[in-house]
Formats: sequence, C-alpha cells, structure tokens
Amino acid sequence: MQTITVNLTPAVNERSYPIHIGAGILDQAELILPHLLQKRVAIVTNTTVAPLYLARLQAGLEGHGVASFPIILPDGEEHKNWHTLNLIHDGLLSNRCERNTTVIALGGGVVGDLAGFAAATYLRGVPFIQVPTTLLAQVDSSVGGKTGINHPLGKNMVGAFYQPRLVLADSATLKTLPERELRAGIAEIIKYGLIRDLVFFEWLEVNMDKLLMRDYDVMNEAIRRSCQNKAEVVADDEREGGVRALLNLGHTFAHAIENGMGYGVWLHGEAVAAGTLLAAELSHRMQMIGVDAVERIRKIYVQAGLPVVAPNLGVDRYLDLMGLDKKVEGGRMRFILLNRVGEAVIHAEVPGPVLRETLLECINDA
Amino acid sequence: MQTITVNLTPAVNERSYPIHIGAGILDQAELILPHLLQKRVAIVTNTTVAPLYLARLQAGLEGHGVASFPIILPDGEEHKNWHTLNLIHDGLLSNRCERNTTVIALGGGVVGDLAGFAAATYLRGVPFIQVPTTLLAQVDSSVGGKTGINHPLGKNMVGAFYQPRLVLADSATLKTLPERELRAGIAEIIKYGLIRDLVFFEWLEVNMDKLLMRDYDVMNEAIRRSCQNKAEVVADDEREGGVRALLNLGHTFAHAIENGMGYGVWLHGEAVAAGTLLAAELSHRMQMIGVDAVERIRKIYVQAGLPVVAPNLGVDRYLDLMGLDKKVEGGRMRFILLNRVGEAVIHAEVPGPVLRETLLECINDA
Repeated sequence: MQTITVNLTPAVNERSYPIHIGAGILDQAELILPHLLQKRVAIVTNTTVAPLYLARLQAGLEGHGVASFPIILPDGEEHKNWHTLNLIHDGLLSNRCERNTTVIALGGGVVGDLAGFAAATYLRGVPFIQVPTTLLAQVDSSVGGKTGINHPLGKNMVGAFYQPRLVLADSATLKTLPERELRAGIAEIIKYGLIRDLVFFEWLEVNMDKLLMRDYDVMNEAIRRSCQNKAEVVADDEREGGVRALLNLGHTFAHAIENGMGYGVWLHGEAVAAGTLLAAELSHRMQMIGVDAVERIRKIYVQAGLPVVAPNLGVDRYLDLMGLDKKVEGGRMRFILLNRVGEAVIHAEVPGPVLRETLLECINDA
Repeated sequence: MQTITVNLTPAVNERSYPIHIGAGILDQAELILPHLLQKRVAIVTNTTVAPLYLARLQAGLEGHGVASFPIILPDGEEHKNWHTLNLIHDGLLSNRCERNTTVIALGGGVVGDLAGFAAATYLRGVPFIQVPTTLLAQVDSSVGGKTGINHPLGKNMVGAFYQPRLVLADSATLKTLPERELRAGIAEIIKYGLIRDLVFFEWLEVNMDKLLMRDYDVMNEAIRRSCQNKAEVVADDEREGGVRALLNLGHTFAHAIENGMGYGVWLHGEAVAAGTLLAAELSHRMQMIGVDAVERIRKIYVQAGLPVVAPNLGVDRYLDLMGLDKKVEGGRMRFILLNRVGEAVIHAEVPGPVLRETLLECINDA
C-alpha cells in the first residue's frame, strides 16, 4: 500500500467580512461595489420584499454601472425546500451566471438561507452578499454563514456553512416590518444579552420601549451589539464544535414548539422566547439560577410582547420532539443553561426527572 | 453607519487527508478507523457495486466494532440529480445520523459525487470518506473535493467543494471493471502525463499494455502517480482559480461531445480522449506543438483503445455546446493548450477562425 497526502492551503482572504449597519444604506451601492467581482449580480428576494425594496437596490447598483436581475421567490417558511432552491439555480443558469457573479439575498431569514445555500452550491460556490430586511435576519441569520433548507423530517437538515462577502443591514427597512415579526426578532437580541453580555441585557431593559417604537438610534445599537456578539462567537467556532452552541439557548425547546404546533403557527422568535423561559426554569431547577433571575428574564420577554409560556403539547410529546424520548429515562442530557443572567454554559448532565418536572410544571395547562 | 468585521479562523486541521492505494485494502478497516468520529457509518453505494463489495467493506468495519448501514442508489449518470441526492438525505435522516456520523462513498464517480455532496450538505456537513471502485474515480474524481449533481441545463452545475477525510483506492476492485470503463479511466491518467509529467507520460507509453492487462504493480503505480499529480495541483489551487484549470485539458471539447451525443452515449473518458486530440490539434494550429507531438499523443490514446476522432456534430453545434457561439466571431477565447508533451498552459487568446478551422478539419466526417 502506498499513501499520498493532500495538503490544502486555507483560503484566509475569503474568511473575513464586514457587516455594515445603518438607516437608509440599502441604495448606497458604493458599500457593495468593492465586494463584486464583476458588474453583474443576481438579486434573490420574495414577493413581499420585492415591491418594497427591489427597485431601490437595483437603482443604486445601476447608478454604479452594475447590472442586476431579480429572482423572486414565493414568501414563507413552507417554501424553504428543494423546489424553491431549484428555482434559484434555474434562474442563475438561464441567466448564464458565472463563477464571478455575486448572489445578493434581499429579504428575511428564509430568503437569506435559500439564497445562501444556492450561492454555496451553484457552480460549487459563487460570491454571496446578505441584505437582510427583517430584524431576525439582521441580528441573527444573516451573520455566521449558516444556510440551508428544511427536510420533511426536520428543519434546516440540509445546508452548508457558507460565509457572505458582506452583510448590509439597513435598519430603515424595519419600518415596514409587521409588529409581530419585530418582536420575534427581539427574542434573539435578548438572547445575546442573556448568554454573554450582561451590560447589553441591562441596556435592553432600559431601552426596550424605544426599540419597540423603532427608534433608529436604539435599533442600530441593538443590531450592532447583537452582530458584534454573534461575530465573536462565530469567529471562535464557525462550525459549532463548542461555544457556538450557546447561541442555541432555548432553541431545543423552541424547535419542539414550532414543530409540535405545526411550522408557521408560532414564529421562530416567539418559540425562542417561550423556550428560553423553559431553559431558565430548567437552570433554576438545576440550582444554577434563582427565582429572581427567572422572573427578570420573564419580565423582559413580557415587556417585548413575547410569549413566556410554552404551549401544552404534553410532556411526552415534547420529549419526542426534542429527540430525547429514548434518553430521558435514567439518562443525562445536554442542554444550554444559564449560570446567571449574562452567562450561558453547555450542561451535559441534566437528569431526566428534572427535565420532566420542568416541562410538567411550566408548559401551559390552559 | 457602523461596521463590524467577522474574522474566521481557517480550519487547518480539516484540510489535509491521505490517499491509500493498494490491491485488496478494501476490508482493511484499520485504515478507516482512525478517521471515524463515532463507531457508526453510512455507506452510499449503487445496485451494481453493492453485490460486489458492500459485504466485504461492512464485514471489515464490523470486525473493528463499527456498525454500518447501506444506502443503495440506482446506477448511472442519469441518476446524478436532486432526486437521488434526496434519497441519501432521507436515508441519513431516517437512520438518525448525527454530525459525527461518517458517510462512506463506495463506487465510481457518480456515487462519489452524490455521496460527497450529500455529506457536504447533510446537517451542513458531516465527515466523508471515498472508497472509489472505478479507475476514473481512483485517479480523478475521488481526489480534490469536487462533489455535485447535474442540472437539466448542464453537468455538475450544482455542488460543493468538500474534501474527504480519506481516500481508500483498492486496485483489486478494478478486476471487475468493464473493459470500456477501464479504458475511459486511462484517458485521465494520460492527461496527467500530458499536462505536467513527461516522465510519467513516457512510463505510460512503455507500460500501457500491462496497464490494460490489469497488472497490479502497474495499476498501483499509475494510480499513485495520477493521484500525486492531482494532489499537487489541487493543493496549489483548491477552488480552480488558476492551475487547477489545467486538469481540464480537452474537457471543453469533451463536454460538448458528451452533451451533443446525449449523456451516456460516450463515456466521459472517451470524450476526454477525443477532446484532448482536438486540444492538441488546436495547439498545433496555434504553432505551439509540432505534428510529431500530435501524432505521439494520438498514438498513446489509440494504444489505450480510446477514440481519437470526435464525432461530427457540425462546427456550429460544437461552438454552441461549448458556449462560444457568441464569442467566436472576432473574439479571442480561453483554452487549455499544450506547450509540449508534459506541459499544458492556459491560453486566453485563441482566435475564432483558428478554432473554427481546427473543428472543421478534425471532427469526423464519416
């Protein structure tokens, strides 16, 4: 037997990217221009966002001599599948896009995940830029390079880690965001404070009302600080071998809620809010935080107008949905829990009975 | 506007991998074991290869305490599409595969491309091992990390660069390879000699008959030297920004032949042989190589039993299939050409009339 070793040089220069945040920067194409490899781009958006912002983005690019063509998808999480992904590939191919053609995602998390995965896989990868237009996308999904689609057997089961060349977060686009989606985005903002940034959490307690009123200065600061937190975590652990898992505080419960209620009934951020309360209650029962901390967490979510009580799907159904039905008896399970407000940890030794008790006592009996 | 920069650490440790080459190493699971993260693997193979080698691979793994389950695909390039990719994802999901579950591709290039792309995208990437069982896969497609599927508008249009953790090339599996596929694989072996390794080309001229007789020593050496050449090229240029393009000598013509004749009528290696002759004829007409070099190249392909005359699809159809129909008049085009036997170069200034003349004179008028 003979052995050859393949040594690949890491592509360092492709691995850093800026996130620009500001009100009204959507058509400042001079921010986009330095990241393009050719003066032609594909813009992936959806039927809701296109009438609002597509023309402005295109006009800005055209003003700098950049031709663009749109690929307009149906709106909604239920379209985050192979079929819609193929629509993007079809559009890129029929417009003869090349390896240097950049794909720009203009929209929320679903558009970003789909367009990013399409960019990751078209010709084995073309340049990609995120222009997120929802709060959730601006503070979470557009940063960190997670892209993908859902599978009938689970959300985000198929995808790629694929980093954008640039994230352009125009907070002015949030003015048209439905109230409920704004609140859902705030759930993830609160999360950053909870897991690693007490000062930010305290700032949010003070500024929540202004954030809900969509004050630009407060929105920009909330987005900036959220992205800063996420960028730091992702820089340490791009592929979620360790600390990146902390970003999933409350998410094991949240995914069970979303799935159990039927996707789309609860928004992701709403499920994260109720799920984070369950994680807080579990942390309390693991004697890691006191009742006061649980109440403080509950209070900020209530202030943000988010649900703090998880729906009563039944304890066994939760365990099943969390994939823990076989582990709960006698076993010990891994959860993201809170050491205190501002510090989350990975806890691998949660006993089954404590999880059961938490669910039994905290899910809505109404 | 504010700006945050995301800095990602290159994952250096995931970027090198060994290629083991030998006769009968398929069931030496001790070669695989060091690369597994858990003692459970998925084996992706097809209906042709499974009866030949699946049981041996599984038994070898089982002997080292590694459980495995197969995902058996239909055989053939026509199945290299979304539908078959989904079959793999379905199998991985329904068997509750986790991030640490390794996907092993057991088969030829189609199985490797499909399984690799499935591994690249399942849970945004799980570990992947190639066990190629055709000569083409052993000397070309299993090395270098190109994975993907075909699109109705073009071959390999959707995919990912995704490196295996290990390539295990058992030359004994070539004993069952149909003669025609063996010859097709030799087309790519000759290519390495042509583009960058004159000594290897000369060795092939001497040893071609033994290679066709499947002499283990000669096969192992041909595979080793091919992989060595490919590894060196890929290490310099993983994502084909530069020198990796040299591996495509003859391939622009070859893709036109495969597409124009209908996929599957000509094997890829057969089209590469005829396409390389066209590239040699074009190099000659560009006054880069003499008639003697063209004849020397023709001779080795004839010796290998490969076609050296491209089918007559008509010159305009060739230009159309090569995507050059709009560039040929007046423009100058990019081709991989030969400076001499053993040295290929990227030539960006091929005039339209010279390309036209080459096609007119060299495609089969029979």
